[in-house]
Amino acid sequence: MTLDTQKMKQDFPILKQIVNDEPLVYLDNAATTQKPKQVLACLNDYYHQDNANVHRGVHTLAERATAAYEAAREKVRRFINADSTKEILFTRGTTTGLNWVARFAEEVLQADDEVLISVMEHHSNIVPWQEACRKTGAKLVYAYLKDGQLDLEDLKNKVSAKTRFISLTHISNVLGCINPVKEIAQLAHQYNAYMVVDGAQSAPHMTIDVQELDCDFFAFSGHKMLGPTGIGVLYGKEDILKQMSPVEFGGEMIDFVYEQQTTWKDLPWKFEAGTPNIAGAIALGAALDYLEKLGMEQVQAHEQELVAYVLPKLQAIEGLTVYGPENPAKHIGVIAFNLEGLHPHDVATALDYEGVAVRAGHHCAQPLINYLGLHSAARASFYIYNTKEDCDKLIEAILKTKEFFNGTL
Amino acid sequence: MTLDTQKMKQDFPILKQIVNDEPLVYLDNAATTQKPKQVLACLNDYYHQDNANVHRGVHTLAERATAAYEAAREKVRRFINADSTKEILFTRGTTTGLNWVARFAEEVLQADDEVLISVMEHHSNIVPWQEACRKTGAKLVYAYLKDGQLDLEDLKNKVSAKTRFISLTHISNVLGCINPVKEIAQLAHQYNAYMVVDGAQSAPHMTIDVQELDCDFFAFSGHKMLGPTGIGVLYGKEDILKQMSPVEFGGEMIDFVYEQQTTWKDLPWKFEAGTPNIAGAIALGAALDYLEKLGMEQVQAHEQELVAYVLPKLQAIEGLTVYGPENPAKHIGVIAFNLEGLHPHDVATALDYEGVAVRAGHHCAQPLINYLGLHSAARASFYIYNTKEDCDKLIEAILKTKEFFNGTL
Repeated sequence: MTLDTQKMKQDFPILKQIVNDEPLVYLDNAATTQKPKQVLACLNDYYHQDNANVHRGVHTLAERATAAYEAAREKVRRFINADSTKEILFTRGTTTGLNWVARFAEEVLQADDEVLISVMEHHSNIVPWQEACRKTGAKLVYAYLKDGQLDLEDLKNKVSAKTRFISLTHISNVLGCINPVKEIAQLAHQYNAYMVVDGAQSAPHMTIDVQELDCDFFAFSGHKMLGPTGIGVLYGKEDILKQMSPVEFGGEMIDFVYEQQTTWKDLPWKFEAGTPNIAGAIALGAALDYLEKLGMEQVQAHEQELVAYVLPKLQAIEGLTVYGPENPAKHIGVIAFNLEGLHPHDVATALDYEGVAVRAGHHCAQPLINYLGLHSAARASFYIYNTKEDCDKLIEAILKTKEFFNGTL
Repeated sequence: MTLDTQKMKQDFPILKQIVNDEPLVYLDNAATTQKPKQVLACLNDYYHQDNANVHRGVHTLAERATAAYEAAREKVRRFINADSTKEILFTRGTTTGLNWVARFAEEVLQADDEVLISVMEHHSNIVPWQEACRKTGAKLVYAYLKDGQLDLEDLKNKVSAKTRFISLTHISNVLGCINPVKEIAQLAHQYNAYMVVDGAQSAPHMTIDVQELDCDFFAFSGHKMLGPTGIGVLYGKEDILKQMSPVEFGGEMIDFVYEQQTTWKDLPWKFEAGTPNIAGAIALGAALDYLEKLGMEQVQAHEQELVAYVLPKLQAIEGLTVYGPENPAKHIGVIAFNLEGLHPHDVATALDYEGVAVRAGHHCAQPLINYLGLHSAARASFYIYNTKEDCDKLIEAILKTKEFFNGTL
């Protein structure tokens, strides 16, 4: 394997536990990842040494906390290759980031304008746009699928002078396919539309270069990439963020507050009202350090190896359907599947008895699940610490589940 | 002292550090408090044993994480004596909570309606209302001060049939006075106005009973009461929250998502879009456990003892002005002051040389600072772990500062 998982597992004590008398095989990484000791040590050190509120204090702890918080912003900037830390807004997570962009859209959209998304979007990249369209009279337009992936022709046909925003997931959290967002961003800009990328499933798994993608916004979450819960990032191009109104109002984001009016602070703080998740941002910085030390190319290669190993084995199971691209080279480490005649919840529960943690449900993508003609699906999703042995355990547990239910049905 | 601070300090290793060759005396608690070992252990245990995404998973870790997250909500309910956990919304902090209420106000307010606040509000309870008024044409009306406290007569005179919202801080983060929000809530309800309470400075320091206060909304932050950063609570009465539209949209808060429309989940989840700050909420629960073990009456009595001890000493220093009520019995543990002829930033910096951490600035309350005819002020704020020795150190450091600057000026 590309990554030394044997050594790495030492950093993740949670993975050593026994669940239902079996060693835990954690395959729910698209929902949230586990945190290495280094990230937890960072959290702990912060609260043991430096904890104070940021930006407002002149005392030693406040200065240390502020320096660490802003250093984390610089780490994020470097990680996604943004041009400036002014473009890095700390949010609560991807959902908050996408909501902020949709709030901006409410200021921009006019009746009959169009917002173009795809049917594979996560609810966080659907519902905010429904609301923006409802409020402005704009139309929400969907691009559909072909061969388990985005139908690029369909999308291209739906872009027009009416399109003001294209908002797409970089990687589907169900289909496991990568969307060509760089190409689509070019198309968007030809039509003077904004390009928004939901990076929740891509930032943790591959090299991200927002300047190369040339997207206008890019949102992602810390907890899906070794960081703590409650912290995320919205990247936006500086000239757009300058025009954009703040979404939350309060302390930290103001310059002068008079009784009846207020002026805003400069970027990025204009968007960060109130005490931020200081410890969360700093620990996200430690998570990025960890990933950068592994190398994002190696992270992607590692997961690709796992998929190349496990996908054919899954496809070979009779009565098992895998969704998304059939070619392992086009399928990243999120694999949704169903077993004929079995409810995915029963499958997930049966796998849990074997220590294998997978998810079952609509994966916050009901329009996609509906489009696929399903009610739900099981999903195994991989990360840096997963091994071929984990894949074997998954296959073994699925076969056992199949056998058990075939016997009892 | 009411609380055993000697024993308690063992729980706060950060307080044992040396800053500028002096033992740290942390008096910036109104900005953020330190975290006891119990809260940090809770965070650590969660990430070492149970970390998973909530509500969506059937595997063991997901079930444990969900149970712990919802148990934390019940702890919050009990702590403020809400009627139901449906009324407890996890937010990023007080600022987010107040912004959500102001967003609700945008749906309710009509031109010529009035929102009544006071001049002592924190920016987070001013700027969201400025925005709601700007968008709706409603008027933002201020009540002013008398004798360093809220002028209740002035406030009463400004309530009318036009008043739709009264939004007040429970305790001023500058003046240290407690506002009679229960009485004002009655008044608000006589006029069919909503009563909103900014509890950022009260929930950490006194018993809160939202049913007894009969307020419609109550917002507070975890990090100001031993909890981690990035987590807070908005309490709202169930019947109001039912009418209220969600503010963020995405996963977790939906029931069914169709391509063009969506239905919402029940309370409280309707408001919690996306992966919440799971670890933060659980650790906030541990912070509330810690406070309840001390007893909130004891917490308040302890701080009252400190104020009774230190306020007269401060008032006795020539050239030092204390803001807020002069009577220690009416002044809680937030004490803003200025030294004649010295810039508060210089005072805070000089105190920091002595190991004493205080804040200086406008304390996110520019209209108040302006109303008091100031540019800024220094502020010492106390919490459960502070002692009379800390008070002595503050006085000593102020006298030293005074002497030093008098010598050099």
